[in-house]
Amino acid sequence: MRNRFDRQLMRLNQEMVDMGGLCEEMITAAAKVVATRDKELIHDIKGMEEEINHKERDIERICMKLLLQQQPVATDLRVISSALKMVSDMERIGDQASDIVGIVQKDSAVPAQMENTHLEKMSKATIDMVSRSVKAFVKENLGLAREVIEQDDLVDDLFSQVKKEVIEMIHNEPERGEECVAILMIAKYFERIGDHASNVAEWVEYAITGEYKGGSL
Amino acid sequence: MRNRFDRQLMRLNQEMVDMGGLCEEMITAAAKVVATRDKELIHDIKGMEEEINHKERDIERICMKLLLQQQPVATDLRVISSALKMVSDMERIGDQASDIVGIVQKDSAVPAQMENTHLEKMSKATIDMVSRSVKAFVKENLGLAREVIEQDDLVDDLFSQVKKEVIEMIHNEPERGEECVAILMIAKYFERIGDHASNVAEWVEYAITGEYKGGSL
Repeated sequence: MRNRFDRQLMRLNQEMVDMGGLCEEMITAAAKVVATRDKELIHDIKGMEEEINHKERDIERICMKLLLQQQPVATDLRVISSALKMVSDMERIGDQASDIVGIVQKDSAVPAQMENTHLEKMSKATIDMVSRSVKAFVKENLGLAREVIEQDDLVDDLFSQVKKEVIEMIHNEPERGEECVAILMIAKYFERIGDHASNVAEWVEYAITGEYKGGSL
Repeated sequence: MRNRFDRQLMRLNQEMVDMGGLCEEMITAAAKVVATRDKELIHDIKGMEEEINHKERDIERICMKLLLQQQPVATDLRVISSALKMVSDMERIGDQASDIVGIVQKDSAVPAQMENTHLEKMSKATIDMVSRSVKAFVKENLGLAREVIEQDDLVDDLFSQVKKEVIEMIHNEPERGEECVAILMIAKYFERIGDHASNVAEWVEYAITGEYKGGSL
């Protein structure tokens, strides 16, 4: 029984890694679209979103099966229920990446310069957060999960800087207002991605310690 | 067999009306929080979000049951698959309302004036859109669904006006930049709520006509 359970848990881990990988890919692609308006990539992103949604359902099914058939307790129960919560946040990350693409599509003021901007740093930090939070789950690495939670402060700081820059730019060059607003909105979505990645890490922390410190909206 | 099917369809309709009602309530509450920062209301909104998430699962379960047990064809099949898509959009409306509250909580520059602003008009228009799209579904009213889809242009226009006002305000009073940015972001979320309400109406159109005209990200 235990062996079968372990096999299913391993499959769950693999699916989580895959879904995390998809999220990273999607954030990377969304950041590229901001800089390039690449139509083919926009098309790819729609496919990735569908894939993430499917993956969410698959993982939910695995978790439900594990819960119903194995009636796990203690750590195992926490791991499975954390996985269930984590996929919701990962699915939302996919949504936010889509929303970024939506802004690019609606707003001709973009493409925006990404290279060496705070916006680019935000995208890179959030990709890193997703990657490390999933790694923390699979490796049951509490330290890593906590690092991700702290990393979210960095993303928040970067967002504050983008905000300040945008406010100054609108003040000085109001004719670039539309472009500035688009950048601001895109930055806001990256900031939300950071929130969700931090939520993922909080669920990892819960899976390992039994203490859940999250709870923000 | 048909009678049982009809009873289940009626239950589905009732659940859809309930979920639509929850969305309206949540948008109303979020708009109020923007104006007041009311802590009790913020607490209530968290409860509403949970309720909407549960409702989504309930409706999904009813739809799956109908699909598996009754193997419906033609219109019935379209009605059920539309309902499945509609609830995803309604759930996203709840998320966006939560995101609005998140901005208020993070940003001390809010409360913002709502009365007689374009922002207030946005909130009212989106509440109306949700209400009418669900009505269109239950009453199978194609005209009403199409009105909702058109109404989204109004919400987009209102958002453009908020954008212009905010750009001008930041240009003239950069010291109010933070407040302006918060208003802009809140407006963006209302605009997204309008998108989702319009999606709901597009699914109603599909359920009735078999033609799906949506498909934007």
